This record gives sequence, structure tokens and C-alpha cells, in this order.
Amino acid sequence: MSEYTYPHNEALFLFNRVLRIPELCQQAGLDELNDELISAVLGEAARFGSERLAPSNRDGDLNPAYMTDDGVQEPSGFAELYREFCDAGWPALIAPTEFGGQGLPNVLSVAVHEIWNSANLSWALAPLLTQGAMEALVAHGSDQLKSRWLAKLVSGEWTGTMNLTEPDAGSDLAALRTRAEPEGDHYRIKGQKIFITWGDHKMASNIVHLVLARLPDAPPGVKGISMFLVPKYLLDENGEPGEKNDLRAVSLEHKMGIHGSPTCVMSYGETQGAIGYLVGEEHQGLACMFTMMNSARQAVGLQGLAVAERAYQAARQYARERVQGEIDGQRVTIIHHPDVRRMLAQMKAANEAMRALAYEAAAEVDRARLAGDEQSRAAHEARVALYTPIVKGWLTELAQEVVSLAMQTHGGMGYIEETGVAQYVRDARILPIYEGTTGIQALDLVGRKILADQGRALEALLADIDASLAAADRAGERVKQRMAQALSTVRETIALLMEGGENDPLSARAGCVGLMMQLGYLCGGWMQLRASQCAGELLLQGEGDEPFLMARQLSAELYADLLLPRSESLKYAILTNASALMAIGEEQF
Amino acid sequence: MSEYTYPHNEALFLFNRVLRIPELCQQAGLDELNDELISAVLGEAARFGSERLAPSNRDGDLNPAYMTDDGVQEPSGFAELYREFCDAGWPALIAPTEFGGQGLPNVLSVAVHEIWNSANLSWALAPLLTQGAMEALVAHGSDQLKSRWLAKLVSGEWTGTMNLTEPDAGSDLAALRTRAEPEGDHYRIKGQKIFITWGDHKMASNIVHLVLARLPDAPPGVKGISMFLVPKYLLDENGEPGEKNDLRAVSLEHKMGIHGSPTCVMSYGETQGAIGYLVGEEHQGLACMFTMMNSARQAVGLQGLAVAERAYQAARQYARERVQGEIDGQRVTIIHHPDVRRMLAQMKAANEAMRALAYEAAAEVDRARLAGDEQSRAAHEARVALYTPIVKGWLTELAQEVVSLAMQTHGGMGYIEETGVAQYVRDARILPIYEGTTGIQALDLVGRKILADQGRALEALLADIDASLAAADRAGERVKQRMAQALSTVRETIALLMEGGENDPLSARAGCVGLMMQLGYLCGGWMQLRASQCAGELLLQGEGDEPFLMARQLSAELYADLLLPRSESLKYAILTNASALMAIGEEQF
Repeated sequence: MSEYTYPHNEALFLFNRVLRIPELCQQAGLDELNDELISAVLGEAARFGSERLAPSNRDGDLNPAYMTDDGVQEPSGFAELYREFCDAGWPALIAPTEFGGQGLPNVLSVAVHEIWNSANLSWALAPLLTQGAMEALVAHGSDQLKSRWLAKLVSGEWTGTMNLTEPDAGSDLAALRTRAEPEGDHYRIKGQKIFITWGDHKMASNIVHLVLARLPDAPPGVKGISMFLVPKYLLDENGEPGEKNDLRAVSLEHKMGIHGSPTCVMSYGETQGAIGYLVGEEHQGLACMFTMMNSARQAVGLQGLAVAERAYQAARQYARERVQGEIDGQRVTIIHHPDVRRMLAQMKAANEAMRALAYEAAAEVDRARLAGDEQSRAAHEARVALYTPIVKGWLTELAQEVVSLAMQTHGGMGYIEETGVAQYVRDARILPIYEGTTGIQALDLVGRKILADQGRALEALLADIDASLAAADRAGERVKQRMAQALSTVRETIALLMEGGENDPLSARAGCVGLMMQLGYLCGGWMQLRASQCAGELLLQGEGDEPFLMARQLSAELYADLLLPRSESLKYAILTNASALMAIGEEQF
Repeated sequence: MSEYTYPHNEALFLFNRVLRIPELCQQAGLDELNDELISAVLGEAARFGSERLAPSNRDGDLNPAYMTDDGVQEPSGFAELYREFCDAGWPALIAPTEFGGQGLPNVLSVAVHEIWNSANLSWALAPLLTQGAMEALVAHGSDQLKSRWLAKLVSGEWTGTMNLTEPDAGSDLAALRTRAEPEGDHYRIKGQKIFITWGDHKMASNIVHLVLARLPDAPPGVKGISMFLVPKYLLDENGEPGEKNDLRAVSLEHKMGIHGSPTCVMSYGETQGAIGYLVGEEHQGLACMFTMMNSARQAVGLQGLAVAERAYQAARQYARERVQGEIDGQRVTIIHHPDVRRMLAQMKAANEAMRALAYEAAAEVDRARLAGDEQSRAAHEARVALYTPIVKGWLTELAQEVVSLAMQTHGGMGYIEETGVAQYVRDARILPIYEGTTGIQALDLVGRKILADQGRALEALLADIDASLAAADRAGERVKQRMAQALSTVRETIALLMEGGENDPLSARAGCVGLMMQLGYLCGGWMQLRASQCAGELLLQGEGDEPFLMARQLSAELYADLLLPRSESLKYAILTNASALMAIGEEQF
């Protein structure tokens, strides 16, 4: 079994140098949140992750959640970890102070969530969804709803879920059939939801389900969807969980991975109808859900990095310990073989790029919130909107490669379940699927984030990359050269795509995943360029940890060789002849 | 559960048009093996695969082989299928007629093995290894060994295994420690072997283990390895299995996939030593094992295609049936969405390229055997040697992408085990590992197959591609254009690599996997170019199935957009700065 250690040095390098988070904290009036305090918070989270969560990861895989007569029983030990986690105050990290939160920046919360996800992906889904529910209530809930429900989500005493999917409505929310009938100050909910993560368990004294449903007078399609808060237990006059609501987990899915996380079929209103409370306006449920989804999508992207990091660490440990083959007559550990080292370097460079982009996207959420003027706020919001599908899509896809390389590094042992890396491969495979598949992310990117504003937000991003390139006097030559090349290819691709643009939505949709991956490699390359520049500056100044910084520069160069050039070849996939694609007869597949 | 159908039309198009197998059969004096008979053999195999083997695939996954007091019990139903298979004469297909075989061409056997592997990968490993053992005995066994052991391997009455790996000797066979002591006309074998596929079971009345071991006077390293035939049961005076030999399966591995295939830890000689018979000369075991391994490596490449085909068919079925979303106000099946269709087209184009290359490589084995003169034989043998690591490496790596796309096409349902596609993803993941990892294949390719002959065999291949390009007057324009570009990139890459060449073995080893993938995409593109040309000729002549041929041309074009351009970006990975890679301190990973 591999151990897990949060890459603290790399994180501080990103926070303090590449992303300049302490400046952002000062801007937010959080003067006390200097680099020392950030390091201390991350260190404490890392300790809990390594010592408490990480050892439970395989338990959840081997002994999944199961159904009992009394609902779902989560894996043994998970509840205790969850109680410790809440006692330490982790769920309240970024919640607004007025609801009992600590009001810390989003980027710090994201770094901390990387740790929970690396340590135990299945377990970490419970606090992740709870945070999403909390954010949706903060943004859209009435004061009454907030006062009754928020504090105990913030404290983690209750957990939250998202209920979107139905058997005939997966990516297509327009097809939702769950009904909500008004009854006094509440509604009666009836319907079935599937793929509900942590839909039932015994770790918390209540579960707050946010459920999409239709009112009787709802218009058809996505404009007729409303969001309801539907608790597992109704609250008594003291605000404590009392009577059981009319809902239950009907069954659990048998999944390829994330066995520790119960994925429920939920049934609402089998008898008199489950009592629910409207969140936001009637028929505005989709907007409410998008608040959760945007945050959840970035969070799932982060999970990609997190499981990739865990898998990489397992591969690194194996490569350092496994003796196989000879070099110059000496038996060596396999880390000395060039191809094994290439795999490790590829994983390392990919993880660094993914982490920097995930943290950068998280910091943009903070920058938007803290913006001094409307124009700046709009610019940062547009950047967040652009980043979100890239972080979700590119990170989760690239994570598949990293976990697979980690298995490959183990050779035959990797395929044996006891080794542990197979779990990372199985767990990671859900990530490009849930919270909107890669295809859904890519359609969002090309349609809503690029074509809809005639590419303005994207051009602003490309201009920032240009500026970084122009200022990169200490970055490695190969990174600069390849980034310039990649940037030019992206501009060429986008121009050709926009040319067809609104007249040719088919081509944009056929090539959208390629475009998302291309922009991912470019943004990752931008992060590596900035890291290379920062490392170069520090080396010039004689500051910092020299071996770390030199390795960091080499890693950026390897990203430029091993990963960035893919942005070139993707051009052809993006611009593929969509009419030819659609011309292949259905029966000829 | 998805059904499985062998793509008969595509196979006949390859056999009769692209690869011109009937001509090869005539050359072999197999005049009766015309296109009708080929079609009939494939049809019969396809029927057995679809109707009998395919339905058992999931049973093996759910109810793996298990240990009993009396050895390993294979999954229920597998033995009956194996008996039917032998009764139909399938194991004897390519065995020499003098040992009871049918003497058919290798390429036909490979096509038939695609079917067994698509239908039930775990089960198909038993006949696959049996065929490998048979080939090794034919090539290296003494007349006495042949007369005692071959006939029942050919009939399938007994199965065979390969015993190479030991706990401290995986890719590094030089580290083998299993011992063989001479004793009269036989040897006593003592040692432990791991990862022995179908190492024990009850489907056959005997198991013929081919075991690598060291004689007492053996020189160190790979030059001191000998090969022994070590049967589960010793033969009595009538040549029938009698006394149990001193060997047993100690335990079974818990694997991520191929659960139906028992992967054994084998112990030889726990008491008096297992009786074994020398195959070939003393200390020449590696050469003997390479006979099996080269055939097995191509066979594993074929498994990549086979499981990719099965997964693709599942995705295609789901995409045709699953209704989701609207186009122009109509609810549609998801095959109408451009990104879903792109995924299907990418899988289809990849599978076509993989199949054509696997069959082409198989046909080269026949061409070498049937060559009229020494020069031609040497040329075909060199081509087989060049193809083998590409078929093993590229097909099994590309298969990972295809099975993953197949899961992605299913959305959330794909991650649920009952849907079936998760099994293909789990099963496929062993393929780039066993029979020599991707890294081992790539080292073999760059070292033994390219640098060792100063790139002559490779240049002959590139010249053949040039010739196809020059003659491709009916192939699609994009295929031709991109192939010309890819060919030029490969030539440039190889020239730069050879320049460093012997002075810089490090770079060749650091970039070897990239080179193998680059050549894979190029060879796959060559197959698509030839297919496009053949389809174009037939369309011009008004022959054949027009919708099939038009789709076939579109598919070649899509390969040129979606897959072939990767050969460009791989150039940078191949030529990456190996000294920089090796300069990253071990502790900086």
C-alpha cells in the first residue's frame, strides 16, 4: 500500500510565487492570511489527509457501502473520520462568516480539497457535495431557508446531495419528470432520481437533498425546472431532525470504482409525497443548480488531479524500491531506466500543470468576488466561466493517462488489486463522466463560452498568455518556443472554427472535445511557463530550494516536449469534416 | 449485455482486397483455400464466438476461477465450451499436417483468434497459450518430444503454458533462479513462477508447462537459461497422463480484470523435484522462448483489437438505442449527436487500422514461411520482426483509448458493472503489461529492430509506404496528404535519432515508446490508405457494397484527422532531451 503526502513545497511555490495568493488575501482584507498561515493550514490538512484519511481508502474499496433495512450503511470507519473532520472545523473553511464559516478564500479550500480527494476520493465526495449544497443555499435560498438549514451544513453536522439525473434524463435535463405539488408553505415531491452520490448513509444526523422537479404549471423543457430542498428528516420546532420524510434510497449501484461512495437510486414520495421547500424562484431551478454545478465541475476536475497525484506517488515509490535489470553491470532500481523515468516525468509534469490550473481557476473565483469594479468583476467571471469546462474536462481526461502510467510503472504487479494502483485506475474512470461528461463540458465551452461571446473571453486569455511569453525572460527556452507555437496554432484553429462559426454549429460540436483538450494543454503550458519563469527568477536571485527549482524547470521543459505538442495535432481533429462524419450511415457503424 | 458479431464484411474486404490473402494461399499451394472457403471458415468461427463463447464472458468476470484442495477450478461452463471448441477442430487450424494439424495459413488463424478474444478474452487465453507451446515444440523439440507431446496439444486435449516470470525476475529474465538438475533422460526442476496464465484448471486432462530454468553449470544472465517441458501429469507407457508430477498452483492472483483466466503462482519441485524434459539445446532457452513470445506478442496485440472491437460494438448498440436530447425539436438516439458520432467514428477507424495491421503482420509470417528464395524470406522475416513490437505495443495502447471511449459513450451507465463495458475496460488493461510491457516492446523495436540494422528494415517499410502513396490514385485526398506528411515526419525523426544513435543510447531509450506509437500511427495510416484505395477502385468499377465502401473511405479520412496527426506531435516526445530527464534528482520526483 502506498502512502500519501501532499506536495507541500510545490503547493507553496504555486501559492506564493506563481499565483501570488498572499497578495490576493491582502486585497480581500485577510491580512492575517500570510504565507506562514497558508502553509500552516495546508500542513494541518495534509496531516489529517495522510494520517487519517489515506489509510481508509482501500477499506472503502474492499468493503463498499451496503443496503440495510434501515437505509444505507457507509463503509466501516468512515463515520468516525467524518466526525473528526467536522470537529476540526474543515467543512466551515470557506463558508461566509455570517453563517458560522471562516470566510477563507476559495483557492485555499480547493487546495485542501485536493488533499481530501487524494487521500480518499470516495469519502471526500460527502463533504464536496455538502459544500455545493451550502453554496446553492447561500446564493439562492430565502432568509428563512438559510436560517433553518445553513448552519448545520456549514458545521458538517448534516450533509448535502444533488439530485438531477433520472433514468430517462441524464445529460438532457429537459426530460426531467419528477413532480412537485404546492401544499401550503411547502411542496410534495414525487419521482425517482438515479446516480445520487452519498444519497443515504449514517454519518450525519440529517441529509439535505437539493432536488430538481417540475411544478404542475411548468413550461416544458429546462425552463420548467424548479429546485427544492428535501430533507431526509423534517425539522421539529427546535430545528432538530424529527419525523422521517417520505423518501428513501431504493438501491445502490455496483460501480467499477469509488466503491466507498454510496451511489443511490432515490425514491421521493412513494406514499404521501416528500415534503420539500422551494429554493430560489419557481422555474429557475436550473440557474440554482448551475451554482452548484459550476463549483462541482471545478471540484471534479480537481479530483482528477488528486487521484493522479496519489497514483503518481504510488508509482514513484515503486520505481524507487523495485530492483530490476542492470546498468553498467549493477542491479538498479527501475527509476534508473530511461523509459520508467520518462513515465514518472510525464506524470509529474502533467500533475503540476493540472494543479496550477485548478488553483488558478479557484483563485479567479476569489478575484471575481473581490473585484473593485464591475468591469474587473465581469472579466474575472468570464475567465471562471471559460476555465470551468477546461478544468473539469481536461483534468479528468489527463488524469486517466496519469493513473494508467502509474499502473504501467508497476508492470504486472500493477494489475494485482492488492498493490493498490488498480483502485486509482478504477476510481478515476468516473471523473470524465459525472457532473457532465467530457462531451457536455466541451459543448459548454465551445457554445456558451466561446461562440456566444464571439471569442472575446478566450481572446483575453490568449492575450494574457502572450503577455506572459513576452515577460518570460527567465523561463526555459523550449517552454517558450513551444508555447509560442501552441498559441499560434490555437489562434489559427479558433479563427477557422469561428469562420464557420454560427453557420456551421455541426463542426463546432463535432470538434468540441478536441478544442477543449487543445485549450487544456495550452493553459497547462501557460502554468508551466509561469512556473519556469518564477523558478528562473528565484534561481537568479539565489533564493529558495535550488534542487527543487532546477527540477521544476526541467519538468516544465518536459511538459513542453511530452504533452504540449499535442495541441498541434488536435487541430486536425477539431477541424475534421463534420458533414463527412454525419454522412456515415447509422447502419455502417 | 451487448451481443458480439464478427465484422465479417470488413474482414473479407481485408482478406480479399487489401491484403490479397487468396493469392498468398495459391502461392502456398492451398488452391482450395479460395475466398469462399475463407469466408466459410470465418463464418463458422464467428458463429461459435457469438453464440457459444460471447454469452459466457460476463460469467467468468463475476465468478472467477478459484482454488480447491484439488487444484484450480475454472469458471463454470468454460470446460464445456472448451470441449466443443476442440471437438470442432479449432485448435488444429494452423498446426502442421504431420502432427494432425490442418496446416492453414497463420493469417486465417489470427482472424479466428480475433473472434475467440472478442467473445471471451479470459477463456481464449487457454487456446492461445496452447498454440504457443505447440509452436515452440514444433520449432525446437526433439523428435521424441514431438511424438510424445504434440498431437494432444494440436487436438487441444492438453493445454500449454509459458513459465517465465519469477518474483524477482519480471522483465529482467537474467535474474531467473529456478534450477534444473540433470537426472538420466530428464531433469528435476525446482523453483517458483508467478503470473502463470491458465497455470492450472480442470478443462484438459493434462497441462504442458514450458518452464525457463538454469542448469547447475549455467553461465550467469540470459545466456544460462534453458527451456523444459514439465507436464502436470507424467505419461505412462501408453502416452496417457499417469502419475502426478511434483508441481502445483499455490495461489491465484486477484486481478483488476480477466477474472475468468486463472493467473497462478506455480511451485515446482517442493518435494523430490518436478520431472522436466529439455526443449532445444542447453542454455538456449531464451531462443526457444522467443519463438513462443514473438507469436504470443502478436497475439496479445490482436487481443487489444479484439476487446476494442467488442467494446465498440457495445457502444454502438447503446448509441443506437439510447434516446437523449433533441435535434430540431425531435427526441433522438444519441448516435445523432456529433460528439457521440465522433467517438464512434474514432473507435471504428482505430479498430479498422488495428485489424488491418494485425492481419498484415500475420500474413507476413506466412509470406516468410512461403518465400521462394532466401532474400525474400529474410526480407519478410525482418518485416515480421519489425511489426511484432508495434503490433503488441501500439494495438494494446490504442485499445485502452477505444475501450475508454466505449465507456464514455455510455455516460453514467458505463460505470455500472451490470452494463458490461466496465469489464472490457478492466480486461483490456492487462494487455500493455503482459508478454512484455509497452516499454519492453519499444526497447526491442528501437534497439534490436531499428538501431541494430542501421534502420534498413524500417527503411524498406517506409519505401513500401512511399510506393503505396504513389499508386494511391483512388484513395481519399486527406489520407494521402496526411500520410505524406506523417511519412516525412517519421523520416525526419528517425534521421535525428540515428544521428545520436549508437553514441546516445540514452535518448533512444527515453524516446522509445513515443517512436513505437509514432510508427504505429503511421502503419495504421498505411493500412487505411490502402483500404481507401481499394474501396475507391471498387467504387469506380461499380463493384461491391457501395454504402460499405463509401463509409470505409470516410472512415479512412477520419483516421487521418483524428489519429494520424499524433505522429507529428510525438516527434517532440521522441527527441526529448534525455540528459535533462536523467538529470532530475531521484528525490525530486
